Amino acid sequence: MHRKIRMGMIGGGQGAFIGAVHRMAAALDGQIELVCGAFSSDPARSRASGQALFLPPERVYGSYEEMIDAESRLPEGERMDFVSIVTPNHVHFGPAKAALEYGFHVVCDKPLCINVQEALELEALTQQTSLLFALTHNYTGYPMVKQARAMIRAKELGAIRKVIAEYPQGWLSTFLEGSNQKQAAWRTDPLRSGPTGAMGDIGTHAENLLEYITGLEISDIFADLTTFVPGRKLDDDGSVLLRFRGGAKGILFASQIAAGEENNLRIRVYGEKGSLEWSQMEPNSLVVRWLDKPTQVLRTGVGSLAPEAQAHARIPAGHPEGYLEAFANIYRNFALAVRARMAGNMPDPLYDFPTVSDGVRGMRFIERVVEASKKQQWVAF
Amino acid sequence: MHRKIRMGMIGGGQGAFIGAVHRMAAALDGQIELVCGAFSSDPARSRASGQALFLPPERVYGSYEEMIDAESRLPEGERMDFVSIVTPNHVHFGPAKAALEYGFHVVCDKPLCINVQEALELEALTQQTSLLFALTHNYTGYPMVKQARAMIRAKELGAIRKVIAEYPQGWLSTFLEGSNQKQAAWRTDPLRSGPTGAMGDIGTHAENLLEYITGLEISDIFADLTTFVPGRKLDDDGSVLLRFRGGAKGILFASQIAAGEENNLRIRVYGEKGSLEWSQMEPNSLVVRWLDKPTQVLRTGVGSLAPEAQAHARIPAGHPEGYLEAFANIYRNFALAVRARMAGNMPDPLYDFPTVSDGVRGMRFIERVVEASKKQQWVAF
Amino acid sequence: MHRKIRMGMIGGGQGAFIGAVHRMAAALDGQIELVCGAFSSDPARSRASGQALFLPPERVYGSYEEMIDAESRLPEGERMDFVSIVTPNHVHFGPAKAALEYGFHVVCDKPLCINVQEALELEALTQQTSLLFALTHNYTGYPMVKQARAMIRAKELGAIRKVIAEYPQGWLSTFLEGSNQKQAAWRTDPLRSGPTGAMGDIGTHAENLLEYITGLEISDIFADLTTFVPGRKLDDDGSVLLRFRGGAKGILFASQIAAGEENNLRIRVYGEKGSLEWSQMEPNSLVVRWLDKPTQVLRTGVGSLAPEAQAHARIPAGHPEGYLEAFANIYRNFALAVRARMAGNMPDPLYDFPTVSDGVRGMRFIERVVEASKKQQWVAF
Amino acid sequence: MHRKIRMGMIGGGQGAFIGAVHRMAAALDGQIELVCGAFSSDPARSRASGQALFLPPERVYGSYEEMIDAESRLPEGERMDFVSIVTPNHVHFGPAKAALEYGFHVVCDKPLCINVQEALELEALTQQTSLLFALTHNYTGYPMVKQARAMIRAKELGAIRKVIAEYPQGWLSTFLEGSNQKQAAWRTDPLRSGPTGAMGDIGTHAENLLEYITGLEISDIFADLTTFVPGRKLDDDGSVLLRFRGGAKGILFASQIAAGEENNLRIRVYGEKGSLEWSQMEPNSLVVRWLDKPTQVLRTGVGSLAPEAQAHARIPAGHPEGYLEAFANIYRNFALAVRARMAGNMPDPLYDFPTVSDGVRGMRFIERVVEASKKQQWVAF
Repeated sequence: MHRKIRMGMIGGGQGAFIGAVHRMAAALDGQIELVCGAFSSDPARSRASGQALFLPPERVYGSYEEMIDAESRLPEGERMDFVSIVTPNHVHFGPAKAALEYGFHVVCDKPLCINVQEALELEALTQQTSLLFALTHNYTGYPMVKQARAMIRAKELGAIRKVIAEYPQGWLSTFLEGSNQKQAAWRTDPLRSGPTGAMGDIGTHAENLLEYITGLEISDIFADLTTFVPGRKLDDDGSVLLRFRGGAKGILFASQIAAGEENNLRIRVYGEKGSLEWSQMEPNSLVVRWLDKPTQVLRTGVGSLAPEAQAHARIPAGHPEGYLEAFANIYRNFALAVRARMAGNMPDPLYDFPTVSDGVRGMRFIERVVEASKKQQWVAF
Repeated sequence: MHRKIRMGMIGGGQGAFIGAVHRMAAALDGQIELVCGAFSSDPARSRASGQALFLPPERVYGSYEEMIDAESRLPEGERMDFVSIVTPNHVHFGPAKAALEYGFHVVCDKPLCINVQEALELEALTQQTSLLFALTHNYTGYPMVKQARAMIRAKELGAIRKVIAEYPQGWLSTFLEGSNQKQAAWRTDPLRSGPTGAMGDIGTHAENLLEYITGLEISDIFADLTTFVPGRKLDDDGSVLLRFRGGAKGILFASQIAAGEENNLRIRVYGEKGSLEWSQMEPNSLVVRWLDKPTQVLRTGVGSLAPEAQAHARIPAGHPEGYLEAFANIYRNFALAVRARMAGNMPDPLYDFPTVSDGVRGMRFIERVVEASKKQQWVAF
Repeated sequence: MHRKIRMGMIGGGQGAFIGAVHRMAAALDGQIELVCGAFSSDPARSRASGQALFLPPERVYGSYEEMIDAESRLPEGERMDFVSIVTPNHVHFGPAKAALEYGFHVVCDKPLCINVQEALELEALTQQTSLLFALTHNYTGYPMVKQARAMIRAKELGAIRKVIAEYPQGWLSTFLEGSNQKQAAWRTDPLRSGPTGAMGDIGTHAENLLEYITGLEISDIFADLTTFVPGRKLDDDGSVLLRFRGGAKGILFASQIAAGEENNLRIRVYGEKGSLEWSQMEPNSLVVRWLDKPTQVLRTGVGSLAPEAQAHARIPAGHPEGYLEAFANIYRNFALAVRARMAGNMPDPLYDFPTVSDGVRGMRFIERVVEASKKQQWVAF
Repeated sequence: MHRKIRMGMIGGGQGAFIGAVHRMAAALDGQIELVCGAFSSDPARSRASGQALFLPPERVYGSYEEMIDAESRLPEGERMDFVSIVTPNHVHFGPAKAALEYGFHVVCDKPLCINVQEALELEALTQQTSLLFALTHNYTGYPMVKQARAMIRAKELGAIRKVIAEYPQGWLSTFLEGSNQKQAAWRTDPLRSGPTGAMGDIGTHAENLLEYITGLEISDIFADLTTFVPGRKLDDDGSVLLRFRGGAKGILFASQIAAGEENNLRIRVYGEKGSLEWSQMEPNSLVVRWLDKPTQVLRTGVGSLAPEAQAHARIPAGHPEGYLEAFANIYRNFALAVRARMAGNMPDPLYDFPTVSDGVRGMRFIERVVEASKKQQWVAF
């Protein structure tokens, strides 16, 4: 079993955007090779994409159904080990279900699917099949996010009181979907994106990051969703108040009309003894403030970090890492888990990744936010 | 009338904290001189304070009533022109009312008083007497706050969609009032502070800053106030959702349990064409982001600013100014208005300052937040 | 002797620039009052300036000679205690000498004068008269500069190895003196500014800051001065290599053609165990880096600082202070020393200020830099 | 010729450090595959390394000589296209020469070799063979470095006057080589590192970056090299003054005893009309300051960049990229050039990379710095 783990990709053909990110992330650590793909529902486009990726023509398929079926018939020494699903949201459920049913592990882009029911079905199927399912909430792959989580689990900040998570972007400040911009078009279309726009696309990243770092569980949600751009069919901005089990409180803010913002995912966690702040715009620093000690700026290059953080920093200490390295950490950890599974071993918990259950929580978050915003009252999570 | 404007101070005796700030702010520009004071309700302490300030003993009074009465009997060429009230919140109304009734202009620390009724009475009295009343919402004195306001008034960002104002502090993370810390004691005491803790003390700064910069008017409020520190009698944290006339939305967050934070008053304003961000921790920069142009960092030292900003930057361009200079801008502008009034002129609108009406809005904001948090529903402003 | 300390100002009339800074700095803490002035060599302009400052006409003089003479004849209870000299460099020596000879303490803007010989004469005269002489190297008044110095004196960084001090400005990037800009005109004129331009005007600030913080003594200097702007008579840029007694090395860089820079005075000190960095653009933070611990950001508002730093932070902890507050620290400390002198006490070393001897070092630095740059070889300091 | 470009690696076995960086950089874009390697001069270690990289045993060699010879005998459809040399400095020349002589393209880690003579020989051989030779001065691969260069070439800043390039690190603050730390050991050993320590290891990065961004050519050098750590055989700190053809001046500073610094490579370029600043610690921003316009912060995610910059930003606009992505740009561009060569096309100048001639300049820089520091006088470049 000494070989690279084999990936088949669903979606991500020429002109797509997140597919290339997944491929780079998968390639970075030399643990995974792309062996096949159904890159587009248009067979010609799928073929052209496969060729550009140096794949043999016979491993480039016209549909995911065809790929999953054909690959399952290949000898074990050849066929793909897992699928990577990088299609728009409404085409997550089908391929994921099929892959699981045919015995393939799954990596799936977020959010998991279109509604809680689909999500629960995928979670159940994953449990039944004992297959591995990674959801690419990639931001949790950053070393400093791991560090933040480790510090909070070690109670260094004391009990957590208040959390503020936010993800402002500005790219949908205008009616971009009206000019046929592909990324804008499907993300603002309820049929392809699901019941929310900004809240599902990036709000779930904030929710996932918040829960991952703090370990807090949301108990109640209040929300105010807004569609600012005339003609848009889904929310492009949302403010959410949160209450957590145990008494902590939170604010979550996601916006795609925050003009001029790039991907300013940012979290602040206030505990009894200190607080921490992390921002994706400067991901290699973790600012830790204390009640009665000087503020610290943790970095990979100086001082010692928690093992969880060190295990996810791969380059010479003190050089900046970015989005792709964090994304690659999800793939690397998934590959390690697949390899452990193949060898009959338990996976090392140090190399964790978001799973289908994070996806269920994300879908529930989306539904509760929509409900709270409609009712204008607190809704139990 | 060519002389300095004469100030009498109420409160601010030895051991107090904000009084010294007011005195430095008033002295900075050489327009105002401190001529008398009732620095403490304890006459001995008032006398000692006056002596330390080099005041003649006969101008140091044992109570504000005594001071106002005595000063009103002095010849016009000697008596104070205005009072500066720097007592705890519950001792704002009395001196302010008395000063107005005796014909003195007033500078008063914020919040204006203890409830909306008192506030309205002071507003009415100010109008009846045609006297000047400044409320020291000092943060609006920063040059870059003036710049932000000017840019929004000039529609440079287009219509405003979303505003986020926040004021996290960490100094009340523990039960400081239990150890007789004077500042903590009165700020957490409903009898002296009013109906709120953090929301009144610093939330009103955020509210005032937000309204000043954006010109938006709050229409509806939702709030979630919390008291995190056991034994505390007032809120030490609050999250507020805002709706503004015209459709803009907002988030306001104030906390005194944000462990490790100093005075991180910060505002972000997102408009159709761009956005701006200002933070008191780095007050000499205004970050302006655009939909399709590079981000700009406006500073007093490079490029040209709006006249409103230039009129409030007093030192060599490019040197950092701070809290005291912003505070002094309130006093300087107030002194200019008093001087204009003495000369029978209209005040120059370039040199503005917060007034008793801002105080009324602040008190209303406090009451509505408390109501919304209790009812757990949106409340009209 | 319970009264404010009395200041007479030389220079700083209407249209001047640094005079107003000195007046604000002197006024801030309520310890000093301006009682007289010779604000301009043009008597009419001096009078107009005095009137605008609310001075009685009889205390406004037409020349510094007249002022020093007249004030010396006033009764002790009325006459000024010290002069503040805020004229261009070539008019420092004369007034300083006269003031000392007539028994007045002196505050003088930097650099001390025009050459080392004058500087030594003033130093000798100061010693002979036992009068107090402060030189306004104002940047050493910042609390975080005091903190840096205290940490290095306490050997927290170990032995110092390398120091980098720099002061880039951009305001003389063009031939501003050609358009009659007053500040540019005298600063680029050898007759009024002395033997250097940028190096004397701001390079000496960097030199003084470096020596103050590190306690290192320069042993050798190498320099490369440049005049970039055609037509300019003095250097507008200079790079200096330094060697210190004990083996440390340094780089000093001053420029007035660093287009776009404001007053980016910045110092980095590298020791055996750690390093620190301070910048005037963000003066309220001191960044301290360690070999094997996380980076710290020291601030006035959180954690405990050295007594030297705390004694120079005057406003509510955690609010930003700026250039004027640092400048005012020089005046406040000078006033405390004058008061101690009047009472026959020793001054408290906690409240230090730059003296005439710092001025001598600065003049020597200027001369050595010019010599090294001409000879293009190392010159002993 | 539709296939990945094939790489053979020399050095980079288990326990090495920069080899893994090269492999990740080469893999990222899916254009290059590792097909063989001589990972260590110890054959067993080479084999173990090859196996961990999933290479077939027959393509893992015991020495670079064996690899180059054996690969040259393989059919064209199988053999490697280029070698990647990631050994210590003293083992660059031999493999590079051999590879060129056998007709293989070369990627080589920096600095190019041990002295100028070797460098010139490699440059001549490259020209004779018409093979491609990339030197991994990886920092020039950052999008914002490309942007800086493009702006200066377009004269947006006017003529350049002053440049400051610096590369402080702190990791050699102690006698690390005494404790057998592998990276420290060879870098401080003149036999393996060459005539300089810090200046060759990181000073050449600063020199290369400076020349790449500004296009300036060094005419004269003055230097002061120091060895601060007792027992160390090579310089660990150096200050360099530069003069450029055309009159610009510069400062270059490299240090490995800058305690607490990570890899703070930073450059500031001051021109007649404006200036720019870039730092590797925050590589996704380029700060541009102007004489009379607000400071701009250029980012990949907002506004339009020069084509040179856009061609080197591969992920969703506005997400942070890091060291590996910049490094990968060198490999990607090299692969494109190899592919163009195979197809008989000219390479696209948009996709540039440092060449053997940059290596010659770097070696000359090292020699001149050593000479200038010894003679303590200006040395012509």
